[in-house]
Amino acid sequence: MSGEPLLVTAFLDRAREHAPEREIVDYVDGTCVRRSTYREYDARVRRLAGALVALGVRPGDRVATLAGNHHRHLELYLAIPLAGAVLHTVNLRLAPDEIAYVVGHAEDAVLLLDAALRPAAAPARAARPDMPVVVLDGEPEDGELAYADLVTGGTPLDGPPPRGEDDLAALCYTTGTTGAPKGVGYSHKALYLHTMAAGLADGHAISRRDRVVHLVAMFHANAWGVPLAALMVGADQILPGPSPRIADVAAIIERERATYLGMVPTLAVDLVDHARRTGADLRSLRALVLGGSTPSRELIRAIEEDLGVPAFQGWGMTETSPMATFSRPEPDAAPDERHAEIQAQGRLLPGLRWRLVDSEGAPVPHDGVSRGELLLRGPWVASEYFRGERPEAFLDGWLRTGDVARIDPDGRLRVVDRVKDLIKSGGEWISSLALEAALLDAPGVADVAVIAVPHERWQERPVAVVVPAAEGVDAAAVLGALEGRVPRWWCPDRVVVVDALPRTSVGKVDKRALRAREHNGVS
Amino acid sequence: MSGEPLLVTAFLDRAREHAPEREIVDYVDGTCVRRSTYREYDARVRRLAGALVALGVRPGDRVATLAGNHHRHLELYLAIPLAGAVLHTVNLRLAPDEIAYVVGHAEDAVLLLDAALRPAAAPARAARPDMPVVVLDGEPEDGELAYADLVTGGTPLDGPPPRGEDDLAALCYTTGTTGAPKGVGYSHKALYLHTMAAGLADGHAISRRDRVVHLVAMFHANAWGVPLAALMVGADQILPGPSPRIADVAAIIERERATYLGMVPTLAVDLVDHARRTGADLRSLRALVLGGSTPSRELIRAIEEDLGVPAFQGWGMTETSPMATFSRPEPDAAPDERHAEIQAQGRLLPGLRWRLVDSEGAPVPHDGVSRGELLLRGPWVASEYFRGERPEAFLDGWLRTGDVARIDPDGRLRVVDRVKDLIKSGGEWISSLALEAALLDAPGVADVAVIAVPHERWQERPVAVVVPAAEGVDAAAVLGALEGRVPRWWCPDRVVVVDALPRTSVGKVDKRALRAREHNGVS
Repeated sequence: MSGEPLLVTAFLDRAREHAPEREIVDYVDGTCVRRSTYREYDARVRRLAGALVALGVRPGDRVATLAGNHHRHLELYLAIPLAGAVLHTVNLRLAPDEIAYVVGHAEDAVLLLDAALRPAAAPARAARPDMPVVVLDGEPEDGELAYADLVTGGTPLDGPPPRGEDDLAALCYTTGTTGAPKGVGYSHKALYLHTMAAGLADGHAISRRDRVVHLVAMFHANAWGVPLAALMVGADQILPGPSPRIADVAAIIERERATYLGMVPTLAVDLVDHARRTGADLRSLRALVLGGSTPSRELIRAIEEDLGVPAFQGWGMTETSPMATFSRPEPDAAPDERHAEIQAQGRLLPGLRWRLVDSEGAPVPHDGVSRGELLLRGPWVASEYFRGERPEAFLDGWLRTGDVARIDPDGRLRVVDRVKDLIKSGGEWISSLALEAALLDAPGVADVAVIAVPHERWQERPVAVVVPAAEGVDAAAVLGALEGRVPRWWCPDRVVVVDALPRTSVGKVDKRALRAREHNGVS
Repeated sequence: MSGEPLLVTAFLDRAREHAPEREIVDYVDGTCVRRSTYREYDARVRRLAGALVALGVRPGDRVATLAGNHHRHLELYLAIPLAGAVLHTVNLRLAPDEIAYVVGHAEDAVLLLDAALRPAAAPARAARPDMPVVVLDGEPEDGELAYADLVTGGTPLDGPPPRGEDDLAALCYTTGTTGAPKGVGYSHKALYLHTMAAGLADGHAISRRDRVVHLVAMFHANAWGVPLAALMVGADQILPGPSPRIADVAAIIERERATYLGMVPTLAVDLVDHARRTGADLRSLRALVLGGSTPSRELIRAIEEDLGVPAFQGWGMTETSPMATFSRPEPDAAPDERHAEIQAQGRLLPGLRWRLVDSEGAPVPHDGVSRGELLLRGPWVASEYFRGERPEAFLDGWLRTGDVARIDPDGRLRVVDRVKDLIKSGGEWISSLALEAALLDAPGVADVAVIAVPHERWQERPVAVVVPAAEGVDAAAVLGALEGRVPRWWCPDRVVVVDALPRTSVGKVDKRALRAREHNGVS
C-alpha cells in the first residue's frame, strides 16, 4: 500500500480534481458579494502558500488568522498547511490582551487579519513588533502587507508540503473559564481522519449533495470540521460574512438552497422565531446540527415540526477536533422519542474510544444511570496541550473532558454536567444541567442558568437565573414546573430574573460571572 | 493527538462496546442455523486468537483460511490479526495445485479449512507437512485440530496486537488470467481507512441501520470490505452459508429484512428472474451494490423498477482492497440518466488518487472522451505485490490497473476495456467491452463476450460469443441491433452461439479459454 502520509492538503487536491466547478459563495450583510469555484480556490491557495513561504514562513511555524467567515479565511485554512505551517485561528472575541497572550504563546510567525479587527490585535502587534502583518481586506496601514498582493504575486506551491502526518496542521486555543487559554495542536493525520468521520453516514454525513453554510465561527475548533469535509466531498460552501443577522441567515438558506447548517441552540431559537414570524422556508436543509450546549426539547420539536427540518446534535470540544459524538435518532422512533434522542449527545464516532470514571478513576458502568467523568481517546483527541501545559487534564493519554455523563447500554451518551458545575448540597450532588433542562420547559422561561451559591448548612444550594419570554415569567410557576421531574431537594432556593445571561467569547453562559454577581448581591 | 496506530482490531472493540447485542446470523441451505451477538463474537475471537498464539503463530505469520461464508470465517477475520498474524483468505475455487502454490508462496503457518474442502487442500498439505491444520466444522481427521476446541480452550487475548499500522493484517492472491497468482498484502492502516471509506455517505454508506448479507465470497478481496465496515458501524451480518441457491438468497433477504447486498451482475440477473417469478419482496434492501463486471442497463432498470430496490455499482480490484469507486446517481436524475450513471463506475472514493495515461505514460485529459489506462494510488491501493513480484504492474508507486477508461470533467469514471481485451483492427482500437454492452441490449441475447481473433489483413477482428435467452437468438438481428450504436467497422465478423460462457474461479468470463476455443475451431 502506498505509504504516503495522511495530509490535509489532500482535500485541496480532491476539490480541484473532483469538484472544480463547485462553489464558494460569500455574503456580506445578507447580500451575495462573490461567487467562485474550487478551481479558482485551488489556484489562489497555491499562490498564497508560495507568498507565505516567500515571506519567511518555515515548516512548523505557526501563522495566525484573526478573521471572520469569508473566502479569504477559507483560503488560509489550506494555504497555511500547504506552506508547511500551522494554521492558528485566533478567537476574535477574546480581549485584546488575551489575543496578545495566545499570539505570544504560539509565537506566531505572521498574523493575517480583517481590517476591522486591528484594534483587537494592537497589543499582540506591539508585543511582537517584528511579526509581519497582512490585512485581508482594504488598504494596508503602517507597514502591513496586502492580502490581495500575496494572492496575486505568489509563486504557486505544488503540494504536498514537507510534513509528516504527525506534524501539526492547525492550532486552536481553548477559552477555559478558569486559567490561561491552552493550545490544542491538531496533526495532519488527526484532521484527515476527523474529516473522513464527518462524511460517515452514521455521523454528519456531509456529502457531495450538500451546500453547507458556515455560521459557526471559523476561529472556533476548525469551524466544527465542516470546511475540510466540504472540500473532501466536493460540497458547496456558503460564507455568511461578519456577524450576520438571523434574517440574513434565513435569507441565505432560502436563496442558496442550503442543505447543512450547524449552529448553537441560542441562535437556533432565533432562527425558529424568525421563520415563524416571516414564513421563511428553510426546508432545503437536510440537517440542522445543534452544538455547543444542550438544546431544549421544545427547540428540537420546533425545528423538526415547525420548520420541517431534521435536527441533530453534534457534541465535542476544542480538544476533540471537535466532533466526538453525533445523535442520529432511530428511523422509526416516535416524535417524542426522537426529540429525546436528539437532546442526548448520541453515539461515539467510529475511531474514538471512551471511558466513564468516578472521582477515584475507577470505571463506572454504562448502564444509563451511573454517572462518571467522561474520558476520551483517539486519533483526533488531544493527549496533551501545546507546550505541555496543564498535564492534569490528561490521564495516561486519555483526555479528561471535565464532563459528567451517563452512557446507556446501547452506547448513547448523555452529558449531565460539567464536573465544576455540580452543586454539592448536604453531601449529595445536584446536576445544574439537569435542572436547567427541566427549567427550560417551564412556562415563560426563554433561557436559564443554574449556579451554586454557598450555604451555611448544606454547603451549596442551587439558584436559577432565568431570562423571561416575551410574556413574562412567574417564579412560583417556574418552581412548580419542576415537580415530579427532579428530586424535591434539587429545587432552587431562589429564582432570579434577568434580561440576558452573560456569555463567554464563544457564546457559552459565563457562570463565573453569574456566581460573582449573585455572591455580591447584584442580580 | 493520541499517536496510537490504526489497527483493524479497533473494529472488534467497537462492535463489542457499541453494538454488543447486534447480530451475526448463519444460514445453511436457506435455513437459519445460528444467531449470536457481537458480545459473543468478541469473546470467541479473543479466545481463538489466544489459541492461535498457543499454536505457535507469531507476529507477522500468515495464517490461511479455506472456507465459505459463515461465522467461523468471520471470527478468523479478526482473530488472526488480533494474534498479530496476517489473514490469508485462500480462493476455494482455485485448482488444488494452485492452492498449494499460494499456501507455499505465502508460507502459511497454519491452515484452517471447512471439512468439505479437504480434497482441495490435499496438495498444499502434502507440500507443507509440518503446517498445523484446523478443521472448522465436523470431526478432525489425521492429526487435524478441531476449531471448536480452539475457541473453547484458548486463553483470551486482550488487544491491541503488537503491530504497527503499516504491518500487514491480510493477504489475498489475485487470480490473473495470465501468470501465477500474485499476493496483495493489506496493511492495518489500509484496511482501517478502507473501512472508514465504506461508511461514507457518498460511498457505500454502510451504517448502523444496516443488516448486510455476505453473498460475496469471504475469500474474495476482503469480501469487498463489508465485514469490517459492519463491525465498525455495528450493523448486523447475515452469512448465507456455502453456495446458497438464488431462492435461498431471496428468502434470507425477506426473512431477515436485509438492507444491503453486494453481488455480481450474473447473480443479480438470477435474483431479478426469481423475484419476478415468485413475487419475492426484496424492498427491505436500501442498496443492491453490483460489482465484478459491468451490469447491463436492463438489469439496473429491473432492479430499480421491478424489484423497487436502489441499485449502485461499486468498482475496484483485489489490488484496491477492493473499493475504489462508487456510482451514486444524482438525486434528481431521470430514470434513464440514473441507470446510465449506475452503469458507469462512478466517482473515486475520497482518499484515493487517479491518473489516466496513454501507452507512453503521458497524461490523457479527463474530458469524458479520451481513453487511457487508469492508474491508482492511495492508502488502500497496492504499490507492490507480496514478495515484490511483477514490478511492471506498478509505475512510480502507482498501480497500473490494466483497465482502459474515460473520466468525464465532473469526475465520473467509465471503464471501457481491459488493456489486454482491446482489439487492434487496421491500426485502430475496438473496445470489446463497449461492443458487449451494445450486444447485451440486442433481442434474444442473455449474455455475451467479445474476443479478438487473428486476421490476415486487419491484424485482429472481433467475434461475438452469445448466450441466447430462452426464446432463442437470430445472429443477423444481433448484428442489426448494433447499427448506429457503434462504428460500422466495429461490427463483429461472426456471432457464435454457445450455451454458457466459461468463467474463471471468481466468476469473470474466461476470455483466454474462449480465444483458445475459437482459435481451435471448437465453438
